[in-house]
Amino acid sequence: MTVTISYHQLLSSSGIATQLPKNRPSLIRCTPSPVSNPVLRPELSIRVGTRLIPHPKKVDKGGEDAFFVSSYNGGVIAVADGVSGWAEKDVDPAQFSRELMRKASSLVGDEEVNYDPRILVKKAHDATSSTGSATVIVSMLDNNGILKVANVGDCGLRVIRKGQIIFSTFPQEHYFDCPYQLSSEAVTQTYLDATVTSIDSMKGDIIVMGSDGLFDNVFDHEIVSTIAEHKDVAEMAKVLADLAYKHSVDFYFDSPYSIKARSRGFDVPSWKKALGQKLTGMTNKI
Amino acid sequence: MTVTISYHQLLSSSGIATQLPKNRPSLIRCTPSPVSNPVLRPELSIRVGTRLIPHPKKVDKGGEDAFFVSSYNGGVIAVADGVSGWAEKDVDPAQFSRELMRKASSLVGDEEVNYDPRILVKKAHDATSSTGSATVIVSMLDNNGILKVANVGDCGLRVIRKGQIIFSTFPQEHYFDCPYQLSSEAVTQTYLDATVTSIDSMKGDIIVMGSDGLFDNVFDHEIVSTIAEHKDVAEMAKVLADLAYKHSVDFYFDSPYSIKARSRGFDVPSWKKALGQKLTGMTNKI
Repeated sequence: MTVTISYHQLLSSSGIATQLPKNRPSLIRCTPSPVSNPVLRPELSIRVGTRLIPHPKKVDKGGEDAFFVSSYNGGVIAVADGVSGWAEKDVDPAQFSRELMRKASSLVGDEEVNYDPRILVKKAHDATSSTGSATVIVSMLDNNGILKVANVGDCGLRVIRKGQIIFSTFPQEHYFDCPYQLSSEAVTQTYLDATVTSIDSMKGDIIVMGSDGLFDNVFDHEIVSTIAEHKDVAEMAKVLADLAYKHSVDFYFDSPYSIKARSRGFDVPSWKKALGQKLTGMTNKI
Repeated sequence: MTVTISYHQLLSSSGIATQLPKNRPSLIRCTPSPVSNPVLRPELSIRVGTRLIPHPKKVDKGGEDAFFVSSYNGGVIAVADGVSGWAEKDVDPAQFSRELMRKASSLVGDEEVNYDPRILVKKAHDATSSTGSATVIVSMLDNNGILKVANVGDCGLRVIRKGQIIFSTFPQEHYFDCPYQLSSEAVTQTYLDATVTSIDSMKGDIIVMGSDGLFDNVFDHEIVSTIAEHKDVAEMAKVLADLAYKHSVDFYFDSPYSIKARSRGFDVPSWKKALGQKLTGMTNKI
């Protein structure tokens, strides 16, 4: 499960150098841009903290998630989650998600991408040759403060402003626990299936991105309260990821995933949860 | 409470005239536009159905909601909800919301607005001279299929694609039951407090907009299932508004509003609900 937290801040030119520690790839800044809108700011930067916790059964391989953070333009953050079903076919599910993120990372400045996250998804998908499939979310902040998001599947993003969630992506799925996904096979989704949204961000906005491991195990109100309790984005990412992990192995925690599963006619007994098997049974046809 | 439903469709040039009944202001279409993106369509139109049900105690004055639908460009839809507290000061809460919508309607083609819903909110607010305040949401569909939304307060919008919610606004509030609002007074919010978001819409998308009377009384999953059961947007709007009304006077229905109230430490006993008083008591300090 992956968590990335970005804090959107306004810095003076002289402030950037002193406030951003050196050699820290998770910190992003951009150069001043022309102002054409009264709510935009002449200089913006985002501060990023990240945390990846592999599934307990996938620790030896480092999990199936992959992500990258780039300082290109206003900043680019992407998360991909390899679909675990490929393991049954002796394919490492992490191969596809990792290559997808590597390719996307190398394409952020591509002329054809032209700062469109959907086109970045297309070109990265086209360039990926590994077998497998993955859910993916890409967010790009431009120099005008507009955060553009392309999403395929059940990774997610929340924007928190003044202690309230003001923006959220929604998971896309074919049926319960079967998300939209990009794949090495021709039958699945493409960039055309991405939900493409944007939000005019403001100084102080907190952007929370992650794979389903975060949003399946942590309620939105817990994300908001956790964010409020910490000032450093790296600390926020760590605490949220640890909370998601704690809930995922807690026999008695009724998670967002469990509640959703029940509403679809599934049940998630605690002993199955302990074994890392999320679902069992199907009492209603879906 | 107001409900508007828009169905996003692709029509051939020859099809528009025959498919759109004449003299029906709730139907919107636009002229063909250049195609610059592979997922955009050469011609788009939205079909709109609306329904307004005044609060039972406000029937004589027609309620405190106001809305307008315009065919300008790809279509503009806006909803405003007058804040009822003004009645205690002998001010009709509908005056402000109605004037705000009248002014916004007359400004949709304004050069300075330039198809930016936040600027439309600003100019309409500046032009409104009535005493009062209102929550407001404005959505504008451009000819490239991008739906731009500016939202101040707790009106709302959902986009449903292939039976799933893929986009939603979120209510902004100072504290429970006190939403952000535009006002005749200087101390409240302005267009700068609007949450501004956008989504790349697609053929077949259903856009549900309404005041809090809809979203306080009808769960998102009920909106999705109601939409799925009807083909005509006017019918969808009617059924959803009727459902919201039915739930609002149902002693035993545990509504989204009731659940949220309890989570904030309030209680909503059924006899109060019957009297049209939504809230009582405060068991926890907020």
